[in-house]
Amino acid sequence: MSFSVTILGSGSALPTSRRKPTSQYIQCAGRHFLIDCGEGTQLQMRKYGVKFQRIDQIFISHLHGDHYFGLFGLLSTLHLLGREKKITLYAPSPLEHILDAILKAGNGHFSYEIEFIAVEDKVGEVIYEDAKCSVTCIPLLHKIPTFGYVIRQKAKSRVLNAEKAERDGISVAYFAKLKNGEDVITNEGQTICSDDYTLPGEPERSYAYCSDTAYSEKLVPLIRNVDVLYHEATFVDALQDRAVATRHSTAREAALIAKQANVHHLMLGHLSARYDDGKAHLKEASEVFGSVEVVEDGLSYLVPQG
Amino acid sequence: MSFSVTILGSGSALPTSRRKPTSQYIQCAGRHFLIDCGEGTQLQMRKYGVKFQRIDQIFISHLHGDHYFGLFGLLSTLHLLGREKKITLYAPSPLEHILDAILKAGNGHFSYEIEFIAVEDKVGEVIYEDAKCSVTCIPLLHKIPTFGYVIRQKAKSRVLNAEKAERDGISVAYFAKLKNGEDVITNEGQTICSDDYTLPGEPERSYAYCSDTAYSEKLVPLIRNVDVLYHEATFVDALQDRAVATRHSTAREAALIAKQANVHHLMLGHLSARYDDGKAHLKEASEVFGSVEVVEDGLSYLVPQG
Repeated sequence: MSFSVTILGSGSALPTSRRKPTSQYIQCAGRHFLIDCGEGTQLQMRKYGVKFQRIDQIFISHLHGDHYFGLFGLLSTLHLLGREKKITLYAPSPLEHILDAILKAGNGHFSYEIEFIAVEDKVGEVIYEDAKCSVTCIPLLHKIPTFGYVIRQKAKSRVLNAEKAERDGISVAYFAKLKNGEDVITNEGQTICSDDYTLPGEPERSYAYCSDTAYSEKLVPLIRNVDVLYHEATFVDALQDRAVATRHSTAREAALIAKQANVHHLMLGHLSARYDDGKAHLKEASEVFGSVEVVEDGLSYLVPQG
Repeated sequence: MSFSVTILGSGSALPTSRRKPTSQYIQCAGRHFLIDCGEGTQLQMRKYGVKFQRIDQIFISHLHGDHYFGLFGLLSTLHLLGREKKITLYAPSPLEHILDAILKAGNGHFSYEIEFIAVEDKVGEVIYEDAKCSVTCIPLLHKIPTFGYVIRQKAKSRVLNAEKAERDGISVAYFAKLKNGEDVITNEGQTICSDDYTLPGEPERSYAYCSDTAYSEKLVPLIRNVDVLYHEATFVDALQDRAVATRHSTAREAALIAKQANVHHLMLGHLSARYDDGKAHLKEASEVFGSVEVVEDGLSYLVPQG
């Protein structure tokens, strides 16, 4: 199954024509998640071909406007399009009150249920899980309560070498155990080794979303060994004072976190509007960590097996 | 002085790539007003060259999202750009609570003061006035409390024919009265007629914004003789049932209002996303009223003397 990240907005608080406010669309094993929803996200979804009604879970990192001001419009559009399926909204608790006030002011209701999960009560926990993937909420270090999300596509069971099993007359009754990695002893006392009749399944793949956050080594154990890390890099080192004052990170700091956490690939985003492009970010980060890119709106990245 | 309307968004609840949600920028005698502020308005302002910091007054018609979901982002951006001048926000009262909740959730404040004027207490009144223009709040007929705005550029005093006055030796002391249309009797008993030494000044010009609204003849006396009327036309007559059910208007109904109110020119907007273009609206309206156009995003219209 595919596991991909589509960048709907790679900018920060001041939107530009090149970089819209933060939002990401994640496809993971047939599930469709939205992380953050800055102003204009619904138009970015249209632009990049994201089907609105596929989204069943929305995760909001924190309540600075550039991460959620597009949510109200998106939820309204889903209603106007006649959605009936429930949406689960994972977000800091004050958002529930804001949404209620907006609905009340418009004398309206949605055609579908919104299940609201207050994430401050769930830090460190798996907040979403099904047979194929899970989402864990992790704490970030910002001016207001802010949360990152780690999405894991579960490892798949071993794949049966059906041809060999048939040739050797292995009973179908043993297949489940063999695929589960277990050896089987037959009624006749014969041992059938899982390794002889199965090939390894796809290993776990993982993606960590960390925006917005100051440099924090506390993040390292929470995201250790993920395949792909998206880490904010609002500034470059020349503005490290600004990064400290606003509780954001520089590109070098993001790379230091990636290195310590032993991730496979680093994506940098949330660039301040003062930067025309990401060249300085890329140069600075790549001096610390090899596999790094600065993302752009519209980029779709396939999460590889690390 | 110029009096112009720039359409920042001509669409309705479902934004499209062609028509963004409602917003208009009005320049009137050196003043700069924003009417409504749908999602993405700040980007439309950038696209069409509207200078953010010039806006001192914002008027919101009603609290359906397509008319105000861009306000939070715009106000945040003004803060990030270091604005210090007060903004006066004219809107239905529940917006004040929503804004407070959003600011509280972000643990923030703005760098400038917002003076909030609850328009439901001001219906029929002049809510803004200075030496050169005024704004009147008028009631519209929609599903929730909704308000239109009539902007008037005041008539200018008569213009002195300076060459003739000098040639005839008219004392400077009389100029103010003559420009004010008054005749003067000199100490010598001579009558100096204003008409002989002045030309007529620019007459009043006026613009009425009416969106969203069902067909309502009660509007007619409130907007009678305005030079330009912007009236919503969400539907065409084939969907008149939808218009009635949703308390919107058809293009024909908007034209009927324009005709009864004896306006000079009619602009139609707020088109439903189901229409690819405005051809059907234009055809239908022009059968009732001659001077009509369907607006597009980015259109700038100079309000003429009717």
